[in-house]
Parts: sequence; C-alpha cells; structure tokens
Amino acid sequence: MPDPGAGPFARAIAVRPDGDGRYRGEINPGWDIGGNANGGYLLALAARAGSEAAGGRQPLTVTAHYLAPGRSGPVAFDVTVYRRGSRLSTVGVTMSRDDRPLLRMLGSFHDGHIDDDSDSGAAVERAEADPPDMPGPHECIRVEPAQPFPPPIMGKVDLRLHPEDSTLSSGRPLVRGWLRLRDGEPIDAFGLLLAVDVFPPTAFNARLPVAWAPTVELTAHIRRRPGPGWLRCRFTSRHIAGGFMEEDGEVWDQTGRLVAQSRQLALVPRAAG
Amino acid sequence: MPDPGAGPFARAIAVRPDGDGRYRGEINPGWDIGGNANGGYLLALAARAGSEAAGGRQPLTVTAHYLAPGRSGPVAFDVTVYRRGSRLSTVGVTMSRDDRPLLRMLGSFHDGHIDDDSDSGAAVERAEADPPDMPGPHECIRVEPAQPFPPPIMGKVDLRLHPEDSTLSSGRPLVRGWLRLRDGEPIDAFGLLLAVDVFPPTAFNARLPVAWAPTVELTAHIRRRPGPGWLRCRFTSRHIAGGFMEEDGEVWDQTGRLVAQSRQLALVPRAAG
Repeated sequence: MPDPGAGPFARAIAVRPDGDGRYRGEINPGWDIGGNANGGYLLALAARAGSEAAGGRQPLTVTAHYLAPGRSGPVAFDVTVYRRGSRLSTVGVTMSRDDRPLLRMLGSFHDGHIDDDSDSGAAVERAEADPPDMPGPHECIRVEPAQPFPPPIMGKVDLRLHPEDSTLSSGRPLVRGWLRLRDGEPIDAFGLLLAVDVFPPTAFNARLPVAWAPTVELTAHIRRRPGPGWLRCRFTSRHIAGGFMEEDGEVWDQTGRLVAQSRQLALVPRAAG
Repeated sequence: MPDPGAGPFARAIAVRPDGDGRYRGEINPGWDIGGNANGGYLLALAARAGSEAAGGRQPLTVTAHYLAPGRSGPVAFDVTVYRRGSRLSTVGVTMSRDDRPLLRMLGSFHDGHIDDDSDSGAAVERAEADPPDMPGPHECIRVEPAQPFPPPIMGKVDLRLHPEDSTLSSGRPLVRGWLRLRDGEPIDAFGLLLAVDVFPPTAFNARLPVAWAPTVELTAHIRRRPGPGWLRCRFTSRHIAGGFMEEDGEVWDQTGRLVAQSRQLALVPRAAG
C-alpha cells in the first residue's frame, strides 16, 4: 500500500501482493490520452509490480511491449523472477484485466545508483552529449489539458515545451522541454518511466500525417536518481521508414546530469497511396 | 530442422520443437568470445525459437536480458506467446541449460517488411541520419581471429573496421565498419541480431579501463530486410556514467537503406578508486 503521505503519482502506481507471484493495482483515471492510459504510466505501474517482486530493487533497464489499450480500472500483474543475482534481479511482468493481457514487461532491477557525492572519484564518467540548450521553464510554453487536446494526462504533469518545438509543426522530428510532476511530487526511477513517454510525439513536429504514433515497444534505461527540481528532456527520431519510426529520449536533471535514456518503436500509419 | 542447403549461421541458430511450447537447440562452438557465446548470436538463437512459436513471423523488436554466460552445448527454450494479433505476435523466450536460465527474451514478430519496390509511393519515409562515410571494405582493416584476441567469432564473420577506428585506441567511443557472413551466406533478420553485437565495444576506443563491457540488456529493431552484400555499421556511445554505458548501433545495407537499430546497456567495471 502507498504511504498515506505519498504523492498522486506514487499512489497511482501502487500495487498490493495477491499471493503466488501475483499483484493487484489500478490504472488510475486522468493519466490518459483520449481514455487510454499513457504508455509511460503503464510501464511505471508494471515496473512497480516487478520491483516489489525483486525485493524493492529499482528499475535499471525495462522494456514494455504494448498488447492492448489500457482503460482506467483494476488490473492484475503476474510476475516471474528469472534471476536474483547479487547485483541484478531480472523480472517479467504481464499486466492484464479479466485475463486479457494489456502489457508485457521485461526488466532488470538493482539496489540503486552510485551516489555521486560519495563515489565520484571512483566512477568512470564521460558524456558525448549535453543537455539541450533551451530557455528556462518560465520562458517555455506550458501545456494544459483541454478537450480534446492536449490530453488529460497534462493535468498530472507540469510540461513546458521549448518555444521552437511547441507549434508541433516545426518540420523537425524534435521535441524539447521541461517536466516535473504537479504539486511538487519528487520524481524517482518510476517517475522517469513516465517522463520518457509523456511528451508529444516527434511525429507531430515531423509533420507526419498521423493522429498518433502507437508504441509497439518502449525501453528505458534509468541511469541515475534525479536530483530535485525540473527534468530537462529531448526527444528525437532519426529514421521513419517501412511503416515504423523510433523515438529516442534523453532526460537530465536540473543539475545537468543524465538520468534516463529511452527508445521506442512506434507504428506510423501509412498515408493513403 | 535447417534446410540442408542452409549456411553455417542458419544451421547454428536452428531449433526443433519439443512439445508444449518448448524447443531445443544448441549453442554452437566458434561463435564465442573466450568460450562464452556472443550476445547477438544468443539473441538470434532465442529469436529463432520465438519466431517458430509465432508461426514463422520475423523479429521486429526484440530485447534480451543476459542472465549467465553461454558455453557451447545443448539448450532448451521455453516459449510463451502473449498475443497473436493480425499484425504482431508478442513472444517471451527463456533459454536455459539444465534448467539454469542463460537469457530471457521478449519480442514482437511480424509477417515481414514492406517491399520498397512495390510500395514506396505509399510509405512515409524520412531519414535524419546517413550511413557512415568510410572507405570501401577492401580499404578497411580485416579482423581475423587469433589467440587470445580477436575472438573466435571473427572466424564466422567477415568484419572490416574503418581504419580510424581499428586501433581500438582512437579516444572516441565510435566503431564503424563493414560486415558480412563468411562463405557468402545472406544476412536475414536473424543475421542482423548478430550484426548489432559482433563489433568490438566502443568502450575500447573510448580508452576505458575495461577488458570487456558485459551486456546487461540488448534491444534491436529490425527495420528492413537487407539486400545482398555488405552491411555498413556504426556504433556509438553517448553516456558513460554510474557504472553503466549505452551503446547504440545503426546498420545499413549495401544500397544505403537502414536495416537495423540497436541499443545495449553494458556494465562498465569501475576503475580502482
């Protein structure tokens, strides 16, 4: 059960054990796009069940394949632990409703990230990419939910788009912006799973003839525990071909440290011939 | 059973059904680094079992978590089909030996890629990245197996490194080169799973103090069926931090069409403090 003092996101991904590798939880209303729960939120919910089965270990690398849209309501999680190692636990989770699978997850979980303050001298560190240079959150474009768009989930996050990317018609498959949870709820490893899938699709800025680009598969690497404050996020796509496109995400915390990377493969409905 | 006319790679990933969602196969000798089978080869073998269970559908996006090193010898595959859709089948595979799991795979499989010749007018196409500009295969540096390095698997592939990256001390986490199977065996979707993990790690060129960077997780997107001839490959890493690094791969066929993308998360042993 969630801590009674937990924030809305922590409560929305809470799960409870139901015996024999099974957990129960609920797809909460409000974390959706047109009634279907956001893919990052669903991944966080499944990872929460996986983490419980892994003795509270935290997500390091998790992959979701999306099997059916998730409407709000109760769900069950069937969890298999494939390995409990000294450093990593590898876990599979099927999220289902009425025995119909909605999502299948595979992930490796660990005891947490190196504490940079105590261990920076010993860690190999190197970055070939910097956080995006962009105006501060208050100079960016705040996205508020509306009918029918932007979607309801924008009421759960405080998302500010880079002005150059906010038109969703820039002509470049690039979306940059700032993100935090509403009400000052801190973002942990599970919140990062939400963060990597909550921005508008790059397909919009690429001016593709799509209403949405449904995710087939999403993989996220949690690289660090974020510090407090805003997340600085960049999403790009390099290859749109053969009816599919990838979208890569990079997320830095407010101090400029990389905290997550993601890649998803999305369907691109073909334009009429 | 493999076609008697099949090449060495096709034979090395052959599996046979053993009833009730179970398949059997063999980690063939020679596809290894110091006795442990290459991760891309193991992924191809697991994907072959997944493909069989999916009625011969081809890998679209597959993820492997590596649980234990794979020495040559017989293995069993336990396969679960999570969904059989009109376009996609989602399948999980555990590869094990003597009931000890070596690898867990999750993947979505489909009926094959759009035939560009017949369908190019109807497909949305866009590329933000070009294949690497490099000298032809015969001007690149051929890698041959030796004791103890390069590893035995180099006897199975014909791998030619870009001269600038072949020293494995360039100072940049970048490895580019050409690849084909030996004996002219064509590369299919399964061969691409090998291709994305058979090059020397970028960590070598990044001059990291590591003997190897063991893969925790590898995800590959098969974006097209490659045409005949050489594959043109580029591997890069952007973030080395917190004891982990990612390695991204892009593979084009000889005609310059993107055929696969990959990302892996690898452990980077920390230097002594």
